[in-house]
Amino acid sequence: MPREITAFSNPLIKRVRNLREKRHRREEGLFLAEGLRILAEADEAGILPDYLFFAADSAAHPIVRRLTATVEASGGEAIQTSRDILHKLSGKDNPQVVLGVYRQFDTDLARIDRTASGIWLVGQAIRDPGNLGTMLRTGDAVGAGGLILIDDTVDPFSVEAVRASMGAMFTQRIAQTRWEEFLPWLRSGPGQLVGLSLEASEHYRRPHYEAPTFLLVGNEAQGLPADYAAACDLRVKIPMLGKADSLNAAVSCAVMAYEVLGQRQG
Amino acid sequence: MPREITAFSNPLIKRVRNLREKRHRREEGLFLAEGLRILAEADEAGILPDYLFFAADSAAHPIVRRLTATVEASGGEAIQTSRDILHKLSGKDNPQVVLGVYRQFDTDLARIDRTASGIWLVGQAIRDPGNLGTMLRTGDAVGAGGLILIDDTVDPFSVEAVRASMGAMFTQRIAQTRWEEFLPWLRSGPGQLVGLSLEASEHYRRPHYEAPTFLLVGNEAQGLPADYAAACDLRVKIPMLGKADSLNAAVSCAVMAYEVLGQRQG
Repeated sequence: MPREITAFSNPLIKRVRNLREKRHRREEGLFLAEGLRILAEADEAGILPDYLFFAADSAAHPIVRRLTATVEASGGEAIQTSRDILHKLSGKDNPQVVLGVYRQFDTDLARIDRTASGIWLVGQAIRDPGNLGTMLRTGDAVGAGGLILIDDTVDPFSVEAVRASMGAMFTQRIAQTRWEEFLPWLRSGPGQLVGLSLEASEHYRRPHYEAPTFLLVGNEAQGLPADYAAACDLRVKIPMLGKADSLNAAVSCAVMAYEVLGQRQG
Repeated sequence: MPREITAFSNPLIKRVRNLREKRHRREEGLFLAEGLRILAEADEAGILPDYLFFAADSAAHPIVRRLTATVEASGGEAIQTSRDILHKLSGKDNPQVVLGVYRQFDTDLARIDRTASGIWLVGQAIRDPGNLGTMLRTGDAVGAGGLILIDDTVDPFSVEAVRASMGAMFTQRIAQTRWEEFLPWLRSGPGQLVGLSLEASEHYRRPHYEAPTFLLVGNEAQGLPADYAAACDLRVKIPMLGKADSLNAAVSCAVMAYEVLGQRQG
């Protein structure tokens, strides 16, 4: 039976509210995800929250009922609460009717099995959580294996990144590493490292990409460091005809990823 | 000579601060843009702010000096202020060193000259300002003529949209209209209307796109209404291999726009 929490002062509410901050997420090893669609997708991927919060007025919703049953059967806790408390937990004006508290995954590079997919996305020093989440969402769509995060990136478990991923958080493999570790790992097996660079001379639609392709996209403001680009097997650029000199990082990543997928689909 | 404002209570500061709200933007017919890069791009496009605010400690920066001179020569006002006030105006923890208050453009559909470009982006009921701004930025990059906004969209003059556009706000033509006006306008001249639709059967890389191509992307949550899709000359879909059933709207738009550009570049 779900317990009910109606008091803002409840210690669990405070704990969950704190998960919007990276420090608390790290200490607890937990993160938040919101929304029926995202929680149902996590469930389909076999991932259940430790705590499931749902709005009292949504208790009868079929997905909420199914989630409640599954979470309780797996030893997690389902908690009925108010819209006001969900608003407090999510920080959004129109909170979703469900919110899950999940255990963070292990993001060790060693857990990446490169043979699992012909496309891998690699982001270097990505700072915007929306971009990170959108890269995960795109990765899911192109059938990528996952997203490898290099150097100092925004926390992939941040509320904004999870939200932008639209559930791909739970279906894409995520690794966090540094360039010094990534490059030897990459060279220890098959893989074509393709760097997107404004200085490159080759049009991104020209080369034939070989699987597994690792698509490397640099930081939003600085782009890819020159020595990282130099270490790539291929450096390509996306043409830009306008006044501006760069695309949004998640957009560049998607244009490249769909070119690779397009070639494979023939 | 720039005047100096150091008091938070200054009426102009309050007025400018209010421009972060749509109601005030509409009443005043003004909007905000921040950052050296964006303001310099506006300047290059021949667009100058009515008011230019700059941080006192950046007064000697060559771009700030040039902007100050140009704004004053054009009858605008340059105002030296503190980082604290810029923080208050921008709402960002690390405010940019310059902020401009610009006059809103006329966004009447009649001002679109379709012969100016072979690609036009069309967004239907776009709700996220980041997506809207990113579409403008992508439009600039692919050499689009501009972005036509259909039905109830987020305000293109919102701070977040302007920020995400990275200056493309000033180089892309923007129109705001409704479907009932857009469709007759479109059919009154040349133009291939291509709708991105999850229900379409045609792979987006298959058709030959004819200039001017109007790429129609639907609302983030609902996608394109069925009757809008039915009215298109072509309905295409971007393949999705994963668990999720949709891409980010700005990402879909970019993948399509780069396919059209790629075909034209041969």
